[in-house]
Amino acid sequence: MNSLVEPNLRHTEQSFSASPVLDALHSVLPTHCILHREEDTRPYECDGLSLYRALPPIVVLPETEEQVIAVMRVCKRLSVPIVARGAGTGLSGGAMPHAQGVLLGLAKFNRIRRVDPVSATAVVEPGVRNLAISEAAAPHGLYYAPDPSSQIACSIGGNVAENSGGVHCLKYGLTVHNVLRVRVVTVDGEVVELGSEAPDAPGLDLLALFIGSEGMLGVVTEITVKLIPKPACAQVVMASFSSVETAGQAVTDVIAAGIIPAGLEMMDRRAVQMVEPFVKAGYDMAAQAILLCESDGTVEEVAHEVERMEAIFGQAGATRLQVSRDEAERLLFWAGRKNAFPAAGRISPDYYCMDGTIPRRHLARVLGAIEQMEDEFELRCANVFHAGDGNLHPLILFDSNKPDEVERAEKFGAAILELCVQVGGTLTGEHGVGMEKINQMCVQFSRDELEAFLAVKRAFDPPGLLNPEKVIPTLARCAEYGKMHVHGGELRFPDLSRF
Amino acid sequence: MNSLVEPNLRHTEQSFSASPVLDALHSVLPTHCILHREEDTRPYECDGLSLYRALPPIVVLPETEEQVIAVMRVCKRLSVPIVARGAGTGLSGGAMPHAQGVLLGLAKFNRIRRVDPVSATAVVEPGVRNLAISEAAAPHGLYYAPDPSSQIACSIGGNVAENSGGVHCLKYGLTVHNVLRVRVVTVDGEVVELGSEAPDAPGLDLLALFIGSEGMLGVVTEITVKLIPKPACAQVVMASFSSVETAGQAVTDVIAAGIIPAGLEMMDRRAVQMVEPFVKAGYDMAAQAILLCESDGTVEEVAHEVERMEAIFGQAGATRLQVSRDEAERLLFWAGRKNAFPAAGRISPDYYCMDGTIPRRHLARVLGAIEQMEDEFELRCANVFHAGDGNLHPLILFDSNKPDEVERAEKFGAAILELCVQVGGTLTGEHGVGMEKINQMCVQFSRDELEAFLAVKRAFDPPGLLNPEKVIPTLARCAEYGKMHVHGGELRFPDLSRF
Repeated sequence: MNSLVEPNLRHTEQSFSASPVLDALHSVLPTHCILHREEDTRPYECDGLSLYRALPPIVVLPETEEQVIAVMRVCKRLSVPIVARGAGTGLSGGAMPHAQGVLLGLAKFNRIRRVDPVSATAVVEPGVRNLAISEAAAPHGLYYAPDPSSQIACSIGGNVAENSGGVHCLKYGLTVHNVLRVRVVTVDGEVVELGSEAPDAPGLDLLALFIGSEGMLGVVTEITVKLIPKPACAQVVMASFSSVETAGQAVTDVIAAGIIPAGLEMMDRRAVQMVEPFVKAGYDMAAQAILLCESDGTVEEVAHEVERMEAIFGQAGATRLQVSRDEAERLLFWAGRKNAFPAAGRISPDYYCMDGTIPRRHLARVLGAIEQMEDEFELRCANVFHAGDGNLHPLILFDSNKPDEVERAEKFGAAILELCVQVGGTLTGEHGVGMEKINQMCVQFSRDELEAFLAVKRAFDPPGLLNPEKVIPTLARCAEYGKMHVHGGELRFPDLSRF
Repeated sequence: MNSLVEPNLRHTEQSFSASPVLDALHSVLPTHCILHREEDTRPYECDGLSLYRALPPIVVLPETEEQVIAVMRVCKRLSVPIVARGAGTGLSGGAMPHAQGVLLGLAKFNRIRRVDPVSATAVVEPGVRNLAISEAAAPHGLYYAPDPSSQIACSIGGNVAENSGGVHCLKYGLTVHNVLRVRVVTVDGEVVELGSEAPDAPGLDLLALFIGSEGMLGVVTEITVKLIPKPACAQVVMASFSSVETAGQAVTDVIAAGIIPAGLEMMDRRAVQMVEPFVKAGYDMAAQAILLCESDGTVEEVAHEVERMEAIFGQAGATRLQVSRDEAERLLFWAGRKNAFPAAGRISPDYYCMDGTIPRRHLARVLGAIEQMEDEFELRCANVFHAGDGNLHPLILFDSNKPDEVERAEKFGAAILELCVQVGGTLTGEHGVGMEKINQMCVQFSRDELEAFLAVKRAFDPPGLLNPEKVIPTLARCAEYGKMHVHGGELRFPDLSRF
C-alpha cells in the first residue's frame, strides 16, 4: 500500500463560505431544490444517532440524476464535502452533515420504477422506503426480504449505504445478498453501473464493495433488488430459559440441526422487563432470556420445522414453550422485539443502541461482562440480539440532562464494542461505523488493513470529498485514541482482559 | 476516476533475464522451492484452458507465509510479474504463466489447520482441495457447500480467486457466501486479514472484493470457510420436456413457488445424447431438454418438496418424471451432469467450455441462437446449464488438429458470450475472465466502469505486477477489439442483432 495520506482531515480547519457554493449550485439546480436558511436546514442536523449534530450550511434535494451529476461536479470543482442522506434513520451518524459541506438529500428519488414478477426483481430509486418495495410487490405474491426494524421509514438507498440487516436476514441474507445492481454517480459526476440482473458479474465485485460503503464511494441513483415469494405460512416458537447460557446453547443446537430459521432473536431479562409492560406481547417476565424462533414455508414444512424446534428447545432446557396460534399472535410475539427501542424510550429519557457481533459461543461471557460494566459505568443496559447471526444490540439507558451521563454512555458503548472485537467479533453488525465507531476501527484493524481501506477510498474519491471524517480513521487519529489493534480472539487488550 | 494508465501493458515488450531474479529468489527460498529448467517448468505452462500456453521462466513453490512475503518483495523490487496458481484446474486461463514472470504455486500450502464443529468453520491453507475440506468435516456431520465439477482436484485458493460455484450454489451460495475470512499477502509483502469469523465485518467489504479477484489484488495464504450440516436426506427429480421453452418455464415455475432447490440443472438434447451412452445414467434420449432438480433436508421435508416439484413439472408439461429411489440412483442421475465435460472429450478431440449467464426468461431465445451459430461456425455445441442461476455452459466441440477449427471455436465462444451480455446477462458465471474473456469485458462494461476496476486494481497493486494482462482490458485493447459496450438488454450490438 502507499503511505497514508489523510484526506479525512483536509476540510476541518478551513473556514467555509457558503455563497460561492450557493451561486454555483443555483446555476445547476432549481431554487426549490436548495435550502440554506437555518430554519430549513435545521431538520437535517443529525440522523438517528442524535448524540452527534452539525448544522449543514447547504442542503440540496435534487430531483433527477442529471442534477445529482451537476451537484457532484460543482462540489468537486470547489472542493466541498458531500454527505448523502436517505431517510436519516441511520444509527451510526453516517448521514450526519459536514459543517463545511453540502448535504445531498435523496428524498425526492422516491419512485418505484418497475416491479417485474417474471424475473422477480424491482427497479427503485434510492429514496423509496424499504417497506414500500414489499407493498408494491405484494400483488404478485413477492416481497423484499431484508427488514430492518426501521423498515417503515428507512430508505433503500440508506440500506445500500449501511448493508442493512433485520430479523429475516439469517435465512434470506443482508442487503448485499438481495441487491443485484446499483447505478452510481461518482465524485467526478460519472455514472457507473455495478452488478447485473444475472448473478455474479465479471471482474472485481464492485457491487459488494459499494454496498455498505457508507456514502464514501459515490451516490446511488437507482437500485435493482431481488424479490422473493412470500411464504404461505409462518409461525414463531417462543421459548423461555433460566439462563443466557442455556438460551445460547439452544441457538447453537437449532443451527447444528441444519435448521435455518426465518428469524432467531434473543432478549435478556432486562429487555423483556422493559418491553412487556409496554407491548403486552405475552413475554415471560420470569425468564432470564427468551428466544423467538420463526419458521416459514408451506403449511406442512412449517408444522414439521416447528415440531423440530420445540423438541430442540425442550432438550436444551426451555422452561416455557409457546407457538404462535395465528398470524395475529405471530405479529404480537414480534411486536415486543420490534418495539424494544421505543420501549427503552418509555423507561429512560435517552438510550444508546449499540451494534456489535460476536462468535455465538462467547454470548454468555459477553453478556456477563456487560452486566459488570453496568456497575462500572453506573448505567443500565438491556440486550436484544439477532442470536442466529451473533449480532448483539445492547441498549444503554441514560439521561442526557445529567451532565456526565452522555460521556459515560459513550464510554460504556465503546467498551462493549471493544469487548466484541476482543472475543473475535466485530464492532458493527448492521448499523455501520459512521461517526460513532471510527475510534473502534483502530482496535478492529491493523495499520496495513486501514491503509487498504484508504487506498480503495482514494481509488473512488481521490479528493476525499464523499462523507469525509467518517468510517475509516487515519493513523494519526488511532495514535491519539491510544488503543491497540487486536486480532480475533487474541487477548492483547489490556483494559478489558478482566472480563 | 483518474485517467487511464495501462499497467497491464507494461511488461510485455521488455526482454526478461531470469538470472538476477533467480539469484534474488535463491537468497530467500530453499533451492528445492525454485524450478527454472524447462523440464520442471513445462507442467505449469497452462491451466484448464489449454488453448493458451506460456512457459514460465521461473516457478516458485513456497512452503511458508514468510517465503511468500519474501517472493513478493523480490518481485516488487525487480518489477517482475507474479502469477499465483492453485491446482491449475481453472477454465479461463487465470493461472496461465507470464512469459517474463514468476509463477507462484501454492501446492505446498495443503494443510487443514483446524475444523471447529462448534462454530462450524474450518481454517485451511489455499492449496487444500475443495473436496478434502468436506472430507475433513464429515466426522462432525458438516461439509463445505460450493461444489465445482472439479471439486476432487481444484484448490480452495483457486475457488477464492474465481468465486467458484457448483450445482449446490443455487441454495447455498457461491464461494463469496461461504468464506468468512482470508489472510492475504499484498504486492508489498504486507499481510492483511479481510473479513471475520463474525458476519459482516465493518468498513468496506474488502473480503467480497477479494473473492473472485483472479489473482490481481494479492496472494491468499489462509482461508476460514463456513461449514454447514450435511442434510439427512436428498432426492433428485428428473424431468423430460419436449422443448427448451417448456423446460425453462418449469424452472421459473419451481422458483416462483418459493422452492429453492439444492440444485437445478438443465441439459439440452445434444448434451443428453453426448452423455448418456458414456455414463448410462438413464437419461431420456428422446427429450429435447431434461431437468435435474434436487431437494435436501429431513426425510419429511424432502418427501413434501419432491411432491411439490413433481406437481409443478407435471403441470409445466413434463413428458417423463422420475425420482431417485435411493442414494445410488441419486448419484447416478448427477453422474451424467458431472461427467458432461469428459463425455465431450469422448466424442470430440477437443471441447471449449463457455460460461455465460443470462436472465432465465431469455433461455429459449439464447439456445435457439446458439443452434443457428452452429451452422455459421460449422461446429457443434452441447448445452449444460445451472438453470436456477441462469448460468449457461455451452460446450463447443472442435478438433485442434484441423487448422481453422481453433479459431472458429474461439469466435463461436466470443459470439455466445456477447449474446449473453446483449440479453442482459454477463460473460462469466463462475469460471472467471482470465485471459479468455478479456476482450468481451469491453462489451460488458463502459469506459467509466473499466476505469473503476483499474482504479481499485491500482489501489492494491500500484506497479501492476499481480497477474498482469488479464481480466481488465485497457481502453487501447478495447479500441483494437472494436466492439461497443452494451448495457443490459439494450440491443445496440450490431453483429448479433439478427438473433
